[in-house]
Amino acid sequence: MNYELPELGQNPSSTAAGTSPGSFAKKPRLAPGAEGRWTFSSPDTPGMPQPSEKTAWDFLPEGWSTEELSVQSRESRARQVSSTLNPQRSTFAQSNGIERTVTYPAGFEPSTQLENARLGIVTPEMTRVAEREGHLSPEQVRDEVAAGRMVIPANKVHLSYQLDPMAIGRASKTKINANMGASPISSGTDEEVEKLKWAERWGADTVMDLSTGGNIDECRGAIIRNSNVPIGTVPIYSMIIGRKLYDLDADAILSSLRHQAGQGVDYFTIHAGVLREHLPYVKERLIGIVSRGGSLLAKWMIDHNEQNPMYTLWEDICDIMREYDVTFSIGDGLRPGGLADATDRAQLSELSTLGELTERAWRKGVQVMIEGPGHVPFDQIEYNMKLQRTLCHGAPFYVLGPLVTDMFPGYDHITSCIGATAAGYHGASMLCYVTPKEHLGLPKKDDVKQGCVAYKIAAHAADVALGIPGSRDQDDELTKARAALNWQKHFDLSFDPDLARAYHDEDLDVDTDFCAMCGHDWCSVRISKEIVEFASGKDQDYQWKLAKKTAALTPEQQAILEKRGVLSPEEIHKLASKTKKAVGAEAGKANCHSDYVDTEAAQALQKDVTLVELHTR
Amino acid sequence: MNYELPELGQNPSSTAAGTSPGSFAKKPRLAPGAEGRWTFSSPDTPGMPQPSEKTAWDFLPEGWSTEELSVQSRESRARQVSSTLNPQRSTFAQSNGIERTVTYPAGFEPSTQLENARLGIVTPEMTRVAEREGHLSPEQVRDEVAAGRMVIPANKVHLSYQLDPMAIGRASKTKINANMGASPISSGTDEEVEKLKWAERWGADTVMDLSTGGNIDECRGAIIRNSNVPIGTVPIYSMIIGRKLYDLDADAILSSLRHQAGQGVDYFTIHAGVLREHLPYVKERLIGIVSRGGSLLAKWMIDHNEQNPMYTLWEDICDIMREYDVTFSIGDGLRPGGLADATDRAQLSELSTLGELTERAWRKGVQVMIEGPGHVPFDQIEYNMKLQRTLCHGAPFYVLGPLVTDMFPGYDHITSCIGATAAGYHGASMLCYVTPKEHLGLPKKDDVKQGCVAYKIAAHAADVALGIPGSRDQDDELTKARAALNWQKHFDLSFDPDLARAYHDEDLDVDTDFCAMCGHDWCSVRISKEIVEFASGKDQDYQWKLAKKTAALTPEQQAILEKRGVLSPEEIHKLASKTKKAVGAEAGKANCHSDYVDTEAAQALQKDVTLVELHTR
Repeated sequence: MNYELPELGQNPSSTAAGTSPGSFAKKPRLAPGAEGRWTFSSPDTPGMPQPSEKTAWDFLPEGWSTEELSVQSRESRARQVSSTLNPQRSTFAQSNGIERTVTYPAGFEPSTQLENARLGIVTPEMTRVAEREGHLSPEQVRDEVAAGRMVIPANKVHLSYQLDPMAIGRASKTKINANMGASPISSGTDEEVEKLKWAERWGADTVMDLSTGGNIDECRGAIIRNSNVPIGTVPIYSMIIGRKLYDLDADAILSSLRHQAGQGVDYFTIHAGVLREHLPYVKERLIGIVSRGGSLLAKWMIDHNEQNPMYTLWEDICDIMREYDVTFSIGDGLRPGGLADATDRAQLSELSTLGELTERAWRKGVQVMIEGPGHVPFDQIEYNMKLQRTLCHGAPFYVLGPLVTDMFPGYDHITSCIGATAAGYHGASMLCYVTPKEHLGLPKKDDVKQGCVAYKIAAHAADVALGIPGSRDQDDELTKARAALNWQKHFDLSFDPDLARAYHDEDLDVDTDFCAMCGHDWCSVRISKEIVEFASGKDQDYQWKLAKKTAALTPEQQAILEKRGVLSPEEIHKLASKTKKAVGAEAGKANCHSDYVDTEAAQALQKDVTLVELHTR
Repeated sequence: MNYELPELGQNPSSTAAGTSPGSFAKKPRLAPGAEGRWTFSSPDTPGMPQPSEKTAWDFLPEGWSTEELSVQSRESRARQVSSTLNPQRSTFAQSNGIERTVTYPAGFEPSTQLENARLGIVTPEMTRVAEREGHLSPEQVRDEVAAGRMVIPANKVHLSYQLDPMAIGRASKTKINANMGASPISSGTDEEVEKLKWAERWGADTVMDLSTGGNIDECRGAIIRNSNVPIGTVPIYSMIIGRKLYDLDADAILSSLRHQAGQGVDYFTIHAGVLREHLPYVKERLIGIVSRGGSLLAKWMIDHNEQNPMYTLWEDICDIMREYDVTFSIGDGLRPGGLADATDRAQLSELSTLGELTERAWRKGVQVMIEGPGHVPFDQIEYNMKLQRTLCHGAPFYVLGPLVTDMFPGYDHITSCIGATAAGYHGASMLCYVTPKEHLGLPKKDDVKQGCVAYKIAAHAADVALGIPGSRDQDDELTKARAALNWQKHFDLSFDPDLARAYHDEDLDVDTDFCAMCGHDWCSVRISKEIVEFASGKDQDYQWKLAKKTAALTPEQQAILEKRGVLSPEEIHKLASKTKKAVGAEAGKANCHSDYVDTEAAQALQKDVTLVELHTR
């Protein structure tokens, strides 16, 4: 060996103490906070440069000013957290220990989360967000919102129903969105509400209602009343129902927005960044404009030979958004529709306009997130994220996929969750799912589930990679259960326990304490146990030496196996009719099961020839 | 706008000409070769440092020496490609234009691809590889093999059957491997041969037979005789069938290896890197040793209190490998079994030994690839790849997954193909698939398909990201077909046409020229067409204005829909019984179909108000 290993640590991203090798990509900046919590500062993705040096503080409304006063010690800060509010001035201690003074016009009343944050006010919604993000304090949430790096999409009307406030921003956990909505081909309010509950069941953090058919208005209302998660829409869809696109005008736009805001929609996708000047670039593309909103507005501009009305009406739109605290999700009407069109002039020119619109919205006190590209080669994702964070001053980035290849229709939940993981790791805050039906048809209920699961994987993998505190705990618990060959706990800790149980039981109808992949004699975990005794994962209920008996398959698990189509119905029935009694070996020992290996003997073996001895050499 | 965009190009990774933005991650070094081909030099992944400055040329057998003579112009090189071979010396022009002289003992006869490459010989297998890798010349293949950065796993015995030679290395396209094999729980030679053909059907580039049950020897023989792809095994499995692990000795090891080499196995996974000195580190882990071969050898070492016999017998093993030209796949017996154990002392210490074993194998003239980790947080993948390439001097890295989260059993084909994409992009040459049954049971035929598809996605996405010439062509063709709303061509270009067709037809039984996602009025592509007329994707058979009628669903497509369980059997039957006649509108026009939009009118509209006008401002 002529090579010196770089300084090696153990488990560099582990929460356990250990020397971190210096040559790793640097981890997010974590430091113990005042009350022993971990602070987690945004921008925070490893290897990324600071985004723009500006934040929402640099884009205050006219008549406002602000100043950071002095650096204070954490101790003295703790006694000064309460804010002093008067008609012209608010002074408060930020979570970073720096005191800030904000001056604003007399008579001003905050309406949005952003405006409250600017005055130093911690709203009930911020407090709830901090509860749900274990690593953030309410003050940190407030400060992220004030800086424009985090949004809390919570329409005041929707708050009066069942909305549970959540946050989108790079300091919080990565979120996922599920799209749904009836099309002219397939429609039905009940069906859409059922899909909504199904999406919530599988972890969707927000839901977009993209209906273009059926009774759109009724459907939207029902979804808002029934949802615990924020609801987003693309309002231009309903603006042109019963109206020719050519006839769309300022009145139609503003009244439609006001109507939807009054219904309680939490965020609006508005494609104000597609400018007339950008359209020539579309000619250079293989597939032109694939955003529905973008293509409609492009056509409007050509028909009228005028600028995008969403762009020219921006401040009027902001006034409506502010009143209800609807959050902007500024749409990317020129997002690429294929790898060949990614990161091209059309897309990047629009992104630059999105930065301008962000600044203008912040000046009106409105919360902003930015939508991002749908098809991007894997090597260009980091660059795309970096550019957005720079141009839009760290406003949360909400990305669709992106797909990293075009030639796998039917599997685009997979092609896109690869890109989504990289996007989350490099700075995106919310990942819009793609289902297996993408490019082919309208997603059904099972497609919604497949899309959600793929995106929970992407979001979780990004959180683990970013080192968000606590994000790896469940992985580690599951690893311990695996090490203990504790199948029941293994399933309990799985994201989809029914599926895991069904797949396991497909091979073995004896008990759940055994895996068909290797069998007893070939089980590396069992052999490994003879080498080291693992103390982990062994609470009273999950003793290594106690076999867990399986119950019969539930109807859900039967349905999973039936869909797989690997076993015959008779075989599935046999599994399903299994009872505790049928499992057998209740008094004695199940054969072939590693839990019954004699631990005493293994320990004796270890004491004789063992590791300890090897260790001391 | 107060921000200057970085220099923008169009389609930076497009094959079309265009200004490349300077701020992108640098692309692989591509330069036009002598005959107009693109050369693609390894090591070649964007953003990666050179791996070790050494190559296989630095680890020649005793009695050998080599020298690079001079830089020659490409023109003169073309006339000197033939090598002059004599008993002591071979001189030949490398594909980089530098002449090399190799001196070696009299009477030496090359046996392996590596030895042939060292003498400057282009074997028939290298020529075949160059045919299959459109961007590489036979001489480039030879030079990559000589440098140790590429292997051609082709046992001489297997070549006498139906093996179609292929290469694994970072200069060639990314490959995928499918594992199969009977376990004591589930077995059967016919079943395994059927899985082999199924894996080949879905794009597996190599197949590993990991049988631990059934008639292992017969099964292996059948798989080798029936396969077009290289076959790998983990020989220790059959070494301990009918023998106690404790009784494993040098004779048993070497005779078992000789037997399998004689059968025609193309590569052997041998866990020689797990040393006695590494075992104490296993105690720091959550899940110890998860490699079956690794755990068996660890137990052997503890039982005997001796060093790993594969390590001590390495040169004897090399002699057998060389005779048949079996390629090493040096196993990672201490690969992590959970995120918590990733990149730890056990794994990295073993990796360092793998580097030593690589050098020793090269000195014996044997081809080498290295196996890599199974569970790695997304942020640590680049580091892992970099370290392997450094320690093992660029020997091809063959990675399992890695999984980027542990808590999604049942979906580990997805969790791992995310990691595999990043691994391929950062330097891995072959990706070992993971199926949905991973951690739960033995994969069935459909699991083999799901694993293969997920890994074809990963390998393809990595190739596109690396910029391997031609790799994006099919994506672009499919994007063009999408832009033309040409569904039949869309399906034909899909990786899984039956699935794409079935998903599409699930929603619409009128014709295939229409998508249920948006419907006619909302089709961005149709609207986009009114903005720019796309000339692409329109050959005689795929005219924009010619509707393609769909045939009835095939039995395969019916089965896909039945498994989805979204439509009732009656509905599927209705789709399946569709005939050309039933499609209707053969003489007239199908309603709601964008192909029937009047192009003349759209063009006129463009001429009046159009882009061209906008462009000139």
